[in-house]
Amino acid sequence: MTPGQKDFPNCPVRKAMTLIGSKWKVLLLQSLRDGRLRYGELLRRLPDISEKMLIHELKELVAVGLVAKHAYPEIPPRVEYWLTESGQQALPVVDSIVVFGRQHL
Amino acid sequence: MTPGQKDFPNCPVRKAMTLIGSKWKVLLLQSLRDGRLRYGELLRRLPDISEKMLIHELKELVAVGLVAKHAYPEIPPRVEYWLTESGQQALPVVDSIVVFGRQHL
Repeated sequence: MTPGQKDFPNCPVRKAMTLIGSKWKVLLLQSLRDGRLRYGELLRRLPDISEKMLIHELKELVAVGLVAKHAYPEIPPRVEYWLTESGQQALPVVDSIVVFGRQHL
Repeated sequence: MTPGQKDFPNCPVRKAMTLIGSKWKVLLLQSLRDGRLRYGELLRRLPDISEKMLIHELKELVAVGLVAKHAYPEIPPRVEYWLTESGQQALPVVDSIVVFGRQHL
């Protein structure tokens, strides 16, 4: 149970917005839709995100199981992120957001 | 041009999230999808929203043209809200959020 959802455990909108309801999360899901990306690649694709925010948003997406990560035991360290099956279920939301956004540019 | 969008004026995700990227805005769009509602009805449908937040979110939705309002010159005052054509274009986003949320309850 997450904040904002405790009084409405069966509300799909509240649940979904808790999981993916930030600009950065939607942009991260969009960035990862075509496959694995390294941390540095994500940072380059979102030039307006701070490292602190990127780390925070990735951590939350990993914690709820929408994104998976693997840290390779290499020097320099290599960490890759990708969408889980649950994360891929969010892609229709991303698609509809892109359509709506294009209608309002 | 709105905050968070100024460096990426052609990004549909950033634009869309600026317009409808809050839990309350999505819940308000969903509440208004079946027709006009009075202010008090909106408040009843979202029992966890504060009046301050409801007024703020409605004001933003009206300002960007997704929601329209009309104040009837009556006593007691009657104010009704409804989705504009632009606001109805956001309903596919609401639908996809509901589907995703149900998959994750």
